Amino acid sequence: MIPRYSRPEMVAIWEPETRFRIWFEIEAHAMDALAELGVVPKDAAKAVWERGKFEVERIDEIEREVKHDVIAFLTNLAEHVGDEARFVHQGMTSSDVLDTCLGVQMARAADLMIADVDALLVVLKRRAYEFKDTPTIGRSHGIHAEPTTFGLKLAQAYAEFARCRARLVMARDEVATCAISGAVGTFANIDPRVEEHVAKAMGLSVEPVSTQVIPRDRHAMYFATLGVVAGCVERLATEVRHLQRTEVLEAEEYFSPGQKGSSAMPHKRNPVLTENLTGLARLVRGYVTPALENVALWHERDISHSSVERMIGPDATVTLDFALVRLTNVMDKLVVYPDRMLANLNKMGGLVHSQRILLALTQAGVDREGAYRLVQRNAMRVWESDGKLQLLDLLKADADVTAALPVAQIEALFDLGHHMKHVDTIFGRVFGKS
Amino acid sequence: MIPRYSRPEMVAIWEPETRFRIWFEIEAHAMDALAELGVVPKDAAKAVWERGKFEVERIDEIEREVKHDVIAFLTNLAEHVGDEARFVHQGMTSSDVLDTCLGVQMARAADLMIADVDALLVVLKRRAYEFKDTPTIGRSHGIHAEPTTFGLKLAQAYAEFARCRARLVMARDEVATCAISGAVGTFANIDPRVEEHVAKAMGLSVEPVSTQVIPRDRHAMYFATLGVVAGCVERLATEVRHLQRTEVLEAEEYFSPGQKGSSAMPHKRNPVLTENLTGLARLVRGYVTPALENVALWHERDISHSSVERMIGPDATVTLDFALVRLTNVMDKLVVYPDRMLANLNKMGGLVHSQRILLALTQAGVDREGAYRLVQRNAMRVWESDGKLQLLDLLKADADVTAALPVAQIEALFDLGHHMKHVDTIFGRVFGKS
Amino acid sequence: MIPRYSRPEMVAIWEPETRFRIWFEIEAHAMDALAELGVVPKDAAKAVWERGKFEVERIDEIEREVKHDVIAFLTNLAEHVGDEARFVHQGMTSSDVLDTCLGVQMARAADLMIADVDALLVVLKRRAYEFKDTPTIGRSHGIHAEPTTFGLKLAQAYAEFARCRARLVMARDEVATCAISGAVGTFANIDPRVEEHVAKAMGLSVEPVSTQVIPRDRHAMYFATLGVVAGCVERLATEVRHLQRTEVLEAEEYFSPGQKGSSAMPHKRNPVLTENLTGLARLVRGYVTPALENVALWHERDISHSSVERMIGPDATVTLDFALVRLTNVMDKLVVYPDRMLANLNKMGGLVHSQRILLALTQAGVDREGAYRLVQRNAMRVWESDGKLQLLDLLKADADVTAALPVAQIEALFDLGHHMKHVDTIFGRVFGKS
Amino acid sequence: MIPRYSRPEMVAIWEPETRFRIWFEIEAHAMDALAELGVVPKDAAKAVWERGKFEVERIDEIEREVKHDVIAFLTNLAEHVGDEARFVHQGMTSSDVLDTCLGVQMARAADLMIADVDALLVVLKRRAYEFKDTPTIGRSHGIHAEPTTFGLKLAQAYAEFARCRARLVMARDEVATCAISGAVGTFANIDPRVEEHVAKAMGLSVEPVSTQVIPRDRHAMYFATLGVVAGCVERLATEVRHLQRTEVLEAEEYFSPGQKGSSAMPHKRNPVLTENLTGLARLVRGYVTPALENVALWHERDISHSSVERMIGPDATVTLDFALVRLTNVMDKLVVYPDRMLANLNKMGGLVHSQRILLALTQAGVDREGAYRLVQRNAMRVWESDGKLQLLDLLKADADVTAALPVAQIEALFDLGHHMKHVDTIFGRVFGKS
Repeated sequence: MIPRYSRPEMVAIWEPETRFRIWFEIEAHAMDALAELGVVPKDAAKAVWERGKFEVERIDEIEREVKHDVIAFLTNLAEHVGDEARFVHQGMTSSDVLDTCLGVQMARAADLMIADVDALLVVLKRRAYEFKDTPTIGRSHGIHAEPTTFGLKLAQAYAEFARCRARLVMARDEVATCAISGAVGTFANIDPRVEEHVAKAMGLSVEPVSTQVIPRDRHAMYFATLGVVAGCVERLATEVRHLQRTEVLEAEEYFSPGQKGSSAMPHKRNPVLTENLTGLARLVRGYVTPALENVALWHERDISHSSVERMIGPDATVTLDFALVRLTNVMDKLVVYPDRMLANLNKMGGLVHSQRILLALTQAGVDREGAYRLVQRNAMRVWESDGKLQLLDLLKADADVTAALPVAQIEALFDLGHHMKHVDTIFGRVFGKS
Repeated sequence: MIPRYSRPEMVAIWEPETRFRIWFEIEAHAMDALAELGVVPKDAAKAVWERGKFEVERIDEIEREVKHDVIAFLTNLAEHVGDEARFVHQGMTSSDVLDTCLGVQMARAADLMIADVDALLVVLKRRAYEFKDTPTIGRSHGIHAEPTTFGLKLAQAYAEFARCRARLVMARDEVATCAISGAVGTFANIDPRVEEHVAKAMGLSVEPVSTQVIPRDRHAMYFATLGVVAGCVERLATEVRHLQRTEVLEAEEYFSPGQKGSSAMPHKRNPVLTENLTGLARLVRGYVTPALENVALWHERDISHSSVERMIGPDATVTLDFALVRLTNVMDKLVVYPDRMLANLNKMGGLVHSQRILLALTQAGVDREGAYRLVQRNAMRVWESDGKLQLLDLLKADADVTAALPVAQIEALFDLGHHMKHVDTIFGRVFGKS
Repeated sequence: MIPRYSRPEMVAIWEPETRFRIWFEIEAHAMDALAELGVVPKDAAKAVWERGKFEVERIDEIEREVKHDVIAFLTNLAEHVGDEARFVHQGMTSSDVLDTCLGVQMARAADLMIADVDALLVVLKRRAYEFKDTPTIGRSHGIHAEPTTFGLKLAQAYAEFARCRARLVMARDEVATCAISGAVGTFANIDPRVEEHVAKAMGLSVEPVSTQVIPRDRHAMYFATLGVVAGCVERLATEVRHLQRTEVLEAEEYFSPGQKGSSAMPHKRNPVLTENLTGLARLVRGYVTPALENVALWHERDISHSSVERMIGPDATVTLDFALVRLTNVMDKLVVYPDRMLANLNKMGGLVHSQRILLALTQAGVDREGAYRLVQRNAMRVWESDGKLQLLDLLKADADVTAALPVAQIEALFDLGHHMKHVDTIFGRVFGKS
Repeated sequence: MIPRYSRPEMVAIWEPETRFRIWFEIEAHAMDALAELGVVPKDAAKAVWERGKFEVERIDEIEREVKHDVIAFLTNLAEHVGDEARFVHQGMTSSDVLDTCLGVQMARAADLMIADVDALLVVLKRRAYEFKDTPTIGRSHGIHAEPTTFGLKLAQAYAEFARCRARLVMARDEVATCAISGAVGTFANIDPRVEEHVAKAMGLSVEPVSTQVIPRDRHAMYFATLGVVAGCVERLATEVRHLQRTEVLEAEEYFSPGQKGSSAMPHKRNPVLTENLTGLARLVRGYVTPALENVALWHERDISHSSVERMIGPDATVTLDFALVRLTNVMDKLVVYPDRMLANLNKMGGLVHSQRILLALTQAGVDREGAYRLVQRNAMRVWESDGKLQLLDLLKADADVTAALPVAQIEALFDLGHHMKHVDTIFGRVFGKS
């Protein structure tokens, strides 16, 4: 997590101030429940809410001595609350606080990322409709295939991120649980109703059965989901990078007037934002495996997961949050060149219509293998002419072809509109009937 | 995928015979829809169903020549169907068949794994109830913490695999889609109703917007989910390995009379099955990243994903399926030693009850820091005596302790039953009220 | 490991026949040493070499009963050797045989891959010299930067794979060790001189200190190295994929006359081999992490590494071997279009020479910021003209530029030869002086 | 990278101050070479060394405007140097500075880690000799196998880290290269002798052929090596964790008097440092794959690697450096309990000697299968007695055994010294003859 790739909203979730505030709320809510159950005096619970405070620096200072963060926090809290502080944390274990807090943080991080995706979806939908009927060549293997529209490309991205949104909601549910169950999860010294109360107060569900900790398969699923979302970011970023390359140049990242592309080549406008997104995706993906390795803790817990989470908790969420917002900005301001799209589409001498000819020949009674040969022999000449010959001309001059298909029909098969006739259907599927 | 770690049911899903059978069904159902729409003759559709056949070896033979598997399949099919075969695959692209088939295979593989988890859940529930009240020591950091029951450990595993089941259902939904949308997903040469018909016939949902292929974020999510499930397998396997180690020996993998543990040390009974499961988990986890890297295909598709899926499709599902079944067998037959559990629990001279003392001292008015010191000074002596001193004895002899707590109360605090009073509550949460 | 991506030479290394043959040699050489030391009768050692045989199927049959592969092998061996067989494996443990055998297999696999790289280097060198002076545009961020030569691109690949060769030699050394040290590595029941003898006979070095097994950091380093080599394969494959895309088309994978690119679009020539290499690289990379996770075995060994190695041992080496040979074939037959390279280079209206102008202006006394502005304002006009304006014309018409640089000098700065003047120097560094 | 897991020495390498200082040195050395070649005035080179300065905050300020870090640096530098600054960076491209700087940083980071390993080796050697003859049970599968010594365990660790040292030296060589080769690596505007001069001055070797950047296979190999070293850290950490678990307790992390193990259980001494090391190893391992994905940049470079390196450059080196130093401290102060080792060793009723009996029976003429059965039937009774029966007693009472072996010989076979007779040999191999 470095400032360059961070947004303050997400960074704030992981700051000590926030973490200790959540700890405080967990302890204070637990006190309420304990007081309600008659385990601690109601005045003590009240005192915690009223006088409870903490200072990050003081906690750090105490921790350097006792080498235990929760004890340090409780000690600092006691300095403010006074005598009633001895009832705080009663029957609880450190992990009750730590893990429930982590759940809150990860849920909030998920909320931010869900909001990020929502903003991205708004942009993608707007731009998809903007270019709904803008013809562009569809490519497989980097080779021209058949026409599509730029709006369809964006609709595809929209559908992908709509799935990501649903996945993030699932991932949030996985981790938004509360455990206040004591040293090995037996509630030996604390009533399960305390857990229920704190869960409700903190907006979490109850962890049905914990050990000392909340089981780490939940967190693994969360980080794995971030890895998938990062893959989707990379995909759209890669698309933009391809579109911007010199020979294609169908779209460009917005390039502000004052910006310098290169210290040496002043003419350059590089897709640096989407290249950066590609790198960020690698990072988020890299955090998945450590999270998966965290699942198999020893017995009721070991603490090996902790250092991993201290790093990848912030790193993965901050990086993905930043990437989603950056991607949204890129797509929002993406400079699109429909003329270049059309020029590129026409560059192949009409080869992109070859499948339609193939089909028409088959429907006109030519067997599939024969039709394939007829199309291929003309297509190969066009291909080798490097843009000088047109498939339409060659087909009209090929007696075997015209024997099967009248010239007028051949010409009609080169109509670009043909490829767009189901665009509305697909948009309807993706965006709903409007 | 090697026979040693494979079950025939899962292997069968990935065999050429199965794959071509699914291809055939996709093509034949598509013909039905095309015939219904009047695009191809109804007799042709009928002919395909009636005379359609294929031979794996013949397809391989043709593929060696044309270097294209779908063309090879269609050629072989045409050898059986005859002239009407020219209508087959009309307006479709190879990926329509390949990707829809992969969706069917991955959905079937998910079904098998869901069934595996169901069988595991049955075993875990049975054994959890069997040992519901069997006391055992709970451990954090590998160090004795507080008592729990062996049933609770198994309930934890049950809850974890119940979550895995839900995740597998979600993963199945992700990939169970059908795309029959042509070369770049525009339905240029095929009516979207064909896709709808085939989807329904094959038990899939319609892919709302495809390119040439079904987007790979779906498959990534699927394999990522398998990685998480593998992590859960590893966790339970690791637990068994720990319980079986010589010094602990609270449980053992079943060891059949004829089995030899070691060529050199005939007395050895090694937890080889759970060690194996640990290794298998590493393998399944290793397949997650390639799947994540598959998402960012170029433009409307490149074929880099294909080799990855040919390998990890079978490898990940076959390995995880095998692991789940093996884990079920291990847990089903696990030899459990309650006496040893109790002996281990008592080995620490009662230190495992220290937190209860701590709490009682606090509740009796000793401040938290003071209580901590009182308990720790006695606990340290017990610890250093290596099992010779008992905490109860020392506490009763410590005047500062008895000043706060009457001896009878101290003795009551050492009651093991105290740790089990919420076991029923937890079981109710996990298994439902029975 | 599937036939489609396998070469028989590498597959053979991992076949049971090979493995048991290596086991036999290890046992027989150990017998020689034991006989020399007087531990076993010399006749027994002789008998093993003379009558020693095994049958894979018989071993499998025995293993199904005893569930232990080395015991099964020894039992089968004894069926052939007779009574003297009781001296075989004396004082050894199964892992002595298994791990030493794995070392032999991994070393042989490395030898094959080193030979693969050697063949690739020959091809890359030949083609690098073939295109040493062929101008092509160098690109950063996918955007035209400055001219280079296609030979330089290939020299870069050569240098990269020369490094890979050195890495593979290191990786081979890591794993080519022999351990015959007994159950926990103490040589309790076997003399260390046996290990020395077997090591020498099998072409291995002695493992200085083993536990029950050879430490797995060695294997981890080996597989990590394969992952790096796979990354280099991916890089060169990605270059070819880019060069072949329709708008660039500076080079193409060789396309045999009978080959069909697409079932639907007969004109297509897709870079399917290099896309495939990209996928294979993902697979090999995916095997790195399981190998790294294998290092931390418990105490003197657990067997979790075994299943991982049974899979990734063959999978990683077979896949990378196949990829290297495929890459060699691609580069050997790569169809290169120098005319298209030149045409693309010129497409930008001379912008690729902008840095030279910038430098000349600076050297003529214009401050850096001023020079940058002068170049950029002309460059931007060329860029926006989409190939219609030439930078040379604009500069000559820009009074501020000509005030600093005479027209003749400006023209000289557009000389392409300027960019090639150090090609020989670089070739000398990479290939040595010839 | 977070303070909790960082050492200032390594953090300093990655701080902006250090990075800009290295940039400055690269530019200034390049000026020297350019002046020597007569490309720039000698006074200018002198001026850069004399007046050259920079301020991190000022650079940041400029970068926010121009969005280019090297231009920002050069601008700030020019503010100090004055007019002669226009000769700085002549003919160079940003990556010449950035990549050469990264090489310097990674080499320095490697130096620190090599020093860390050296310190670890000193500790391991000292403690290996300290416990050279301390008997302890060797375990396979977590099950008692045969005796070994605690010194041998540490010698194994020593040998492993000696290999790691050699690997780190190799990794350092991989990345310690210098490229000053211009926009696409052709030296179009800069003489290769500048590169040679800067390389020498900065303690680097010359990159034989670069593109715009230094090829990333070098960095990939570096990070992959860190992943392997992390695996070795994890292995030794795991050993300590096992030794410290309650039932084993053969060694313990040093526990300072003021330290609190648990907020709830004051008696606990947890192996938190080695658990932490396990987590840190997961992190370092997780950085390997992003580094491997960085290799395949597009054409002469894209900038996707940059964000990855900005994160994992510091994160991987800081984390591994911290881990190595922490491991050294753990091993330095490790509290070892030889008595407990011996007690554990004897816990199995002598079963650990079973292989010696097996061998002796074979050598006495009993066939291998028969000997195996004889030993196993007695061993099984011992095993099932849970430490109550002794193997020696049973064997002496087994007529079939005594028929083959005299009682005195059986007793001699239980001598522990037998297992230590080659310890000196192994120590000689690992540490050299002393």
